[in-house]
Amino acid sequence: MAGFFASRASLDGDAYLELTFTFECAGDPHAAAAHLASEQSTAQWHRVGVPEDFRPQFAAKVLELDATPIEAFSLPLTVVPSGAVHRCRAVIAHPWGNFGPRIPNLITAVMGEGTFFAPGIPIIRLEDIRFPDAFLAHFDGPQFGVAGVRELLQVFGRPVFFGVIKPNIGLPPEPFAELGYEGWMGGLDVAKDDEMLADAPYSPLAARAALLGAARRRAEAETGLPKGFLANITDEVDRLADLHDVAVDAGANLVMVNALPVGISGVRALRRVARVPIVTHFPFIAAFSRVPAHGVHSRVMTRLQRLAGADVIIMPGFGDRMMTPAAEVLENVQACLEPMGSVRPSLPVPGGSDSAATLPGVYRQMGTVDFGFVPGRGVFAHPLGPRGGAASLHEAWAAIVAAQ
Amino acid sequence: MAGFFASRASLDGDAYLELTFTFECAGDPHAAAAHLASEQSTAQWHRVGVPEDFRPQFAAKVLELDATPIEAFSLPLTVVPSGAVHRCRAVIAHPWGNFGPRIPNLITAVMGEGTFFAPGIPIIRLEDIRFPDAFLAHFDGPQFGVAGVRELLQVFGRPVFFGVIKPNIGLPPEPFAELGYEGWMGGLDVAKDDEMLADAPYSPLAARAALLGAARRRAEAETGLPKGFLANITDEVDRLADLHDVAVDAGANLVMVNALPVGISGVRALRRVARVPIVTHFPFIAAFSRVPAHGVHSRVMTRLQRLAGADVIIMPGFGDRMMTPAAEVLENVQACLEPMGSVRPSLPVPGGSDSAATLPGVYRQMGTVDFGFVPGRGVFAHPLGPRGGAASLHEAWAAIVAAQ
Repeated sequence: MAGFFASRASLDGDAYLELTFTFECAGDPHAAAAHLASEQSTAQWHRVGVPEDFRPQFAAKVLELDATPIEAFSLPLTVVPSGAVHRCRAVIAHPWGNFGPRIPNLITAVMGEGTFFAPGIPIIRLEDIRFPDAFLAHFDGPQFGVAGVRELLQVFGRPVFFGVIKPNIGLPPEPFAELGYEGWMGGLDVAKDDEMLADAPYSPLAARAALLGAARRRAEAETGLPKGFLANITDEVDRLADLHDVAVDAGANLVMVNALPVGISGVRALRRVARVPIVTHFPFIAAFSRVPAHGVHSRVMTRLQRLAGADVIIMPGFGDRMMTPAAEVLENVQACLEPMGSVRPSLPVPGGSDSAATLPGVYRQMGTVDFGFVPGRGVFAHPLGPRGGAASLHEAWAAIVAAQ
Repeated sequence: MAGFFASRASLDGDAYLELTFTFECAGDPHAAAAHLASEQSTAQWHRVGVPEDFRPQFAAKVLELDATPIEAFSLPLTVVPSGAVHRCRAVIAHPWGNFGPRIPNLITAVMGEGTFFAPGIPIIRLEDIRFPDAFLAHFDGPQFGVAGVRELLQVFGRPVFFGVIKPNIGLPPEPFAELGYEGWMGGLDVAKDDEMLADAPYSPLAARAALLGAARRRAEAETGLPKGFLANITDEVDRLADLHDVAVDAGANLVMVNALPVGISGVRALRRVARVPIVTHFPFIAAFSRVPAHGVHSRVMTRLQRLAGADVIIMPGFGDRMMTPAAEVLENVQACLEPMGSVRPSLPVPGGSDSAATLPGVYRQMGTVDFGFVPGRGVFAHPLGPRGGAASLHEAWAAIVAAQ
């Protein structure tokens, strides 16, 4: 068991990821933590009858462990292990040389069978992950990042105004493009497809991107300002590169993929060929991040999206509607913007039922202008129409600036 | 609201997926169910001021709804909506023409923002999904399936015996291949890489596959029986096709990918080019399937893996060690084997700390020989060595047959 514990000072920091887990275990917490480390690395560290020990190089090692006795498991479980129950927090150093700088293998090692089936630990959450610079150096990260997206759109000193064109489902490309045009003319920086609208029979991507591209250029000519059309190219992962070209050649100047549905590795693959900023969206993440005691904290997914090369990361934002505590939103924002070795920052876009009315509150909570603001119905179902809805964002921002 | 309710008889069954959800809601369950349907489809079903209605074609529609009042939400929540709480079960018909026969877009529509952020529904689980034949017809599904895998290995009338070569992490290819050879000589049908071992610096896939391929052919010559080497090619999704070729050309005759880590769409992409059976493994799924009230039921993931073309699906098996109720294991087995339009069955492999001692119990629970049995340490840490460990499986099977 001792081979699965170590002090931070005794390890080469460049060779290890640091993982923070919270868990609830039955029986001895020390043994549970050792199991957690061994199951995610080298649970059988020698051949039968051979005097060898793979643990020094290959074992994950517990660096910190706190345990508090609790009455019972905090979640209903169908299979309940017996023994005294503790709630624990552990920091584990995981040697990434076991699998290399690859996202699927990282996910397998740190949130796979070793984590969720460690003996005595039915409830566990991966709370955070930290990467050494030696690991990060293998990743390109965002191609544009916050500065590149601002440069493309020529938006400085304020949030970037996105708008989700609505109705999101069912509208053919022609009226859809007309709505986008109205939004841009009212002051949107980026008009975007909904995350559920992709290459659909009633709105083929090529036709939509061509019409939106033409409308975008018309709005640019009339306003004298750069505009963005963000095309959702989410599709089977082996179509992403082609659909990127279809969309961009037709007139999109940003592309969106739904990160977990295509796979975060698919985002990284797209990054290798992308000519425009990549925007990622959050479907599926709440399936494993909503319950506080079990699953994976959403900021881990934000870090992985940034690592994979997302220039812009759309995430659940503030307000009860999005069922996400403000602290968690801010942890995700921080994961986008804080230093991360050689990896550029991603523009965070906390979203959900926003409008001009919510902008002051969102800005106050963010404490920075480095974010995107993304109303849907707040612009496209605005009583004054999309042009008035988009203009209302600028009016709200002007009021914020005037009050400062 | 009425536009989001329908009777099954009023709909064209070929145009809709059927989704079963359980959820807990605050406020009127009828309104919550309508939100759930509208948010996953066309929440704004007309342009402002335009007399149009996208709901008949594009809305998801509630077919069934049962609601029972409960005292309070059953899980601890950080954001708790106010109102009387009900526990509900709903069946929703979702028009798949909204997105087409594509896995990432399916995931986005049925387990995305619309599901996990429907107003008043903080706790929700997608329990099951059923596909009409018109949808299934767009998918190739498994290339080999149960019959093809049996044909390849010439194993009939009994479970297929897999063994996970251990030590899984840290062992160089030469002694690793020697262990595989011993396992085959003892009677393993398939020796396999652990899901955490892929193309690692200390065990490059090409070198490992070459040595295992040679050892496999040696074992085939000496036993006169076909043998399988299952190489884990899990890696960045745009490397899978190349690594399949590397592994197969060197001597692997089955390949494994970790389905959620590479993305289920990545499995489908691999299927398009694979020349050998594809085996999928279960990392990450327990992050969202363990808690009974929230997330996605594991059988949904099994159905998607089969749809994507997995010939063999490794899943958490029986016994407290795997923290999965027996009923859930059997639901996953059924999802592999039951009729599914034109899609072939996948061989289910319920796994976890198995050995000759657990075979009778697993077989009794399965009630069929159409499964794979996959010990790790039960063969490779056997006191008599891997050869004796593998032989013990056949002895256990002979005893089962003799007792029948």
